[in-house]
Amino acid sequence: MKEDPLVMSMLFDFYGEVLTEKQRDFFDLYHNRDLSLGEIAENTGITRQGVRDVIVRATQVLRSMEDKLGLVGRYKAVQNGLVEIRDAAAAIEEINNRRYGSGPVREYAQRIQELASGIAEKT
Amino acid sequence: MKEDPLVMSMLFDFYGEVLTEKQRDFFDLYHNRDLSLGEIAENTGITRQGVRDVIVRATQVLRSMEDKLGLVGRYKAVQNGLVEIRDAAAAIEEINNRRYGSGPVREYAQRIQELASGIAEKT
Repeated sequence: MKEDPLVMSMLFDFYGEVLTEKQRDFFDLYHNRDLSLGEIAENTGITRQGVRDVIVRATQVLRSMEDKLGLVGRYKAVQNGLVEIRDAAAAIEEINNRRYGSGPVREYAQRIQELASGIAEKT
Repeated sequence: MKEDPLVMSMLFDFYGEVLTEKQRDFFDLYHNRDLSLGEIAENTGITRQGVRDVIVRATQVLRSMEDKLGLVGRYKAVQNGLVEIRDAAAAIEEINNRRYGSGPVREYAQRIQELASGIAEKT
């Protein structure tokens, strides 16, 4: 049943808030904290099958949200673009440093890198 | 009942896919195509109150999604950052053009502007 941990973690980050509290807790324990179905069952007083059903349902809800909204796919495209922006701004900064040292181009190039990092954290 | 059209339009763009087909259709007719409740009722053979109930419910669903996922708020922050990036890259390009004309800095600065525009369309 265990699926790609990175995908599960991203789906949970993006859409976890739409799950019920129980779905969110069990999903988190299983996928992010790596507890087994049996351990979650033991800790919560529910059968192993009951725990499994909750997690399967939570996974369906998260996948259905991604089918509808596609945020994880978009996230990757945006992050790749931001990395390219930072690289290009860093290249400008380096060329400018060799020629002039400080100055407005350096400041703009540094500002671009800061902004791209800020956006990367927000998306 | 009519709420801020820009907010409604953004909520619909981001989360419209989670609505039922009927909710989506009625919401779209009312908020995006500016039909009245009475006109929608007439076109669909449902009572005016029935149309209203569907749209009120659709609005609740969209608002609840935004409360949970916050994409509209994040979108604005990201777009503002991208505008700043484009402005800074354009400023670099201008300074560079005055000093050198073409060259690697110009290409990097143009590439940054392209990338920022590409990301702006994806978010």
